[in-house]
Amino acid sequence: MLTSGVYSYLPLGLKVLSNVKKIIQEEMNAIGAQELFLPVLQPLELWKQTGRDEILKEVMIKFKDNRGREMCLGPTHEEVITDLVKGFVQSYRQLPLVLYQIQTKFRDELRTRFGIVRACEFIMKDAYSFDRNKEGLEKNYQLMYEAYKNIFRRLGLEVVIIEADSGVMGGDVSHEFMVPAPIGEDNVILCLECDFQGAVTGVQDEGKSCPKCKKGKLKKEIAIELGHIFQLGTKYSEAQGALFLDEDGKQKPLIMGCYGIGVSRVIAAIIEKNNDEKGIIWPKEVSPFDVELLPIFPAKNDKEMREAVSQYYIELTGQGYDVLLDDRQESAGRKFNDADLIGIPLRVTIGKRYFSEGKVEIKVRRTGEERIVEKDKLQQVITEIMDQDV
Amino acid sequence: MLTSGVYSYLPLGLKVLSNVKKIIQEEMNAIGAQELFLPVLQPLELWKQTGRDEILKEVMIKFKDNRGREMCLGPTHEEVITDLVKGFVQSYRQLPLVLYQIQTKFRDELRTRFGIVRACEFIMKDAYSFDRNKEGLEKNYQLMYEAYKNIFRRLGLEVVIIEADSGVMGGDVSHEFMVPAPIGEDNVILCLECDFQGAVTGVQDEGKSCPKCKKGKLKKEIAIELGHIFQLGTKYSEAQGALFLDEDGKQKPLIMGCYGIGVSRVIAAIIEKNNDEKGIIWPKEVSPFDVELLPIFPAKNDKEMREAVSQYYIELTGQGYDVLLDDRQESAGRKFNDADLIGIPLRVTIGKRYFSEGKVEIKVRRTGEERIVEKDKLQQVITEIMDQDV
Repeated sequence: MLTSGVYSYLPLGLKVLSNVKKIIQEEMNAIGAQELFLPVLQPLELWKQTGRDEILKEVMIKFKDNRGREMCLGPTHEEVITDLVKGFVQSYRQLPLVLYQIQTKFRDELRTRFGIVRACEFIMKDAYSFDRNKEGLEKNYQLMYEAYKNIFRRLGLEVVIIEADSGVMGGDVSHEFMVPAPIGEDNVILCLECDFQGAVTGVQDEGKSCPKCKKGKLKKEIAIELGHIFQLGTKYSEAQGALFLDEDGKQKPLIMGCYGIGVSRVIAAIIEKNNDEKGIIWPKEVSPFDVELLPIFPAKNDKEMREAVSQYYIELTGQGYDVLLDDRQESAGRKFNDADLIGIPLRVTIGKRYFSEGKVEIKVRRTGEERIVEKDKLQQVITEIMDQDV
Repeated sequence: MLTSGVYSYLPLGLKVLSNVKKIIQEEMNAIGAQELFLPVLQPLELWKQTGRDEILKEVMIKFKDNRGREMCLGPTHEEVITDLVKGFVQSYRQLPLVLYQIQTKFRDELRTRFGIVRACEFIMKDAYSFDRNKEGLEKNYQLMYEAYKNIFRRLGLEVVIIEADSGVMGGDVSHEFMVPAPIGEDNVILCLECDFQGAVTGVQDEGKSCPKCKKGKLKKEIAIELGHIFQLGTKYSEAQGALFLDEDGKQKPLIMGCYGIGVSRVIAAIIEKNNDEKGIIWPKEVSPFDVELLPIFPAKNDKEMREAVSQYYIELTGQGYDVLLDDRQESAGRKFNDADLIGIPLRVTIGKRYFSEGKVEIKVRRTGEERIVEKDKLQQVITEIMDQDV
């Protein structure tokens, strides 16, 4: 942490971030969304067109540049993308269009909390759809809804999806993707008997009966919002004059949707849901490495062990595994503790058994299961274990 | 362009950016540098420790946040990384350490020019080395120097490397990596006869004799600076108190180097060096796609052609090629012009010959060479051509 609300991604964290981004990119690309990268610096002028310079003024970071222009750091990008699309979409033939980016956002939050859950500088995936009509918007909204379900499933996060208020974004329909976790700032209502889940409202309150199964009691849980999707309609396109020529020869405002995922928050939620008293237990889909090689160097045969470990490293890397090698001259205990803390799915200990019995030890971080395997069978056993859920 | 000095990366540009980043990451990782991601928001307090808040005050973007803290947007990251490393390096055993990031930097430039050459918001790769002693620094500096040569070679850019002034960074030794191009803001001196190249100084002026071969005349060329490496020494570690415990039991300041590449500028230089009157000619290493499929839909057999094109798309993608499909219902002329403008290395036209003769046409963007090939041999011929330099 550099200062309250501002964080660095160290090498392991950056690898997790990059794995999370990859899953998001794959699911976005699969529904035909195209990735781009919008600027952080935005002229305040653009925000005056929609009046959101006033609505967001508490959290917006503003400054006057050397040319005297009023600028802000993007807290979100609806205005910028609408301005961009306005410049190159003229005809209904160019629609639908779905664009997204993974970009750093800036909000001057007074109360930052739980590390990267609410920070002043954080990473978001924000997507925007542009359609000719409401049917098009609904179709893209549905595609995005399903893509979000896929993303959270692949990230190993069980989400509660609730209809939500559109807030400062505007528009009619909106859904939030929440994960029950104590680091959150929101609440969800769950039925203790059936699969009912919803927002906290007057009628659906803790202790009441479930409106779906009529039997179960409702329970309130603290949850963290990881995704939010909105049917915006024409709020931005009308205010900013983003029109297209429809087939009937008429100029019409673009029909928009916007779709956000808090990428830094996703990482916080994954850690929150995957840890024990010893440290993090990374799900293999996002883990910074697949396998940690942990040699315990003997007084003798040091060179021979280094060669063996180096050979494993080359072979496993060649098989496509990301391998972390802890070749520090630290005690076995220290190295085991650090391995548990970092939480790579598989730990391979190459210790004295390697010489005495020709064996190495594999430990599965999540289950604690340990297996002693022949030194020549290591790769095979790793592949077997990694094909399962670890 | 959103406003002067601020640009978006559209989908094709973002793919180029991502290819350039990948080459840089591979070469950085190959010399043992570890990637991380530092914050944009920085407390001004940190800059006061080195006095650079004054030196850089013209270009630094500053604001006071809601807590009343003086903050700035990172124009560079020496102070932040020194502060970070100070926090977790205690002993010489943890050295050497080389860290890098690819991150957006902010400088409030009054005179932005040539698009992404000098912008207010731009992407840089910045690396930092931390060593026990001068020999360590020199070794890392040399590794970085060679890695930079590899990076620019892989990017197809012929660089002129000159000893340079350390400027606001401080330190003794420094080298600049320049590419002669009219979009630049610097000058280099080249010998017309031998391989001498250098900075413009009083003694090495245009028209004079080459100091190396003594025969050739010196010629001045405008060049763009793409990389700059510095042996910083202890300027930052002393000012910020970043000390380590050496083997002799003494606390000593870390010996630092810093190493930058202007990533946005690299893209501008690649475009500048690879274009003709029709548009860009992307080198295959960074091209957003490898192959463009360009079907010219006939009045009849439209469905059959769509199927053929779709089959090519699947096969080529399966072989690992990035394929762009221009399936717009535009005229052949418009599609050809756009293909030349975008500049993908290979263009495959599937036109009426496909039905009449069972043939398709491959055009190499760089050479203009055209080959008519059997429709079943397309993949094979593409692989042959892509294995050469196109």
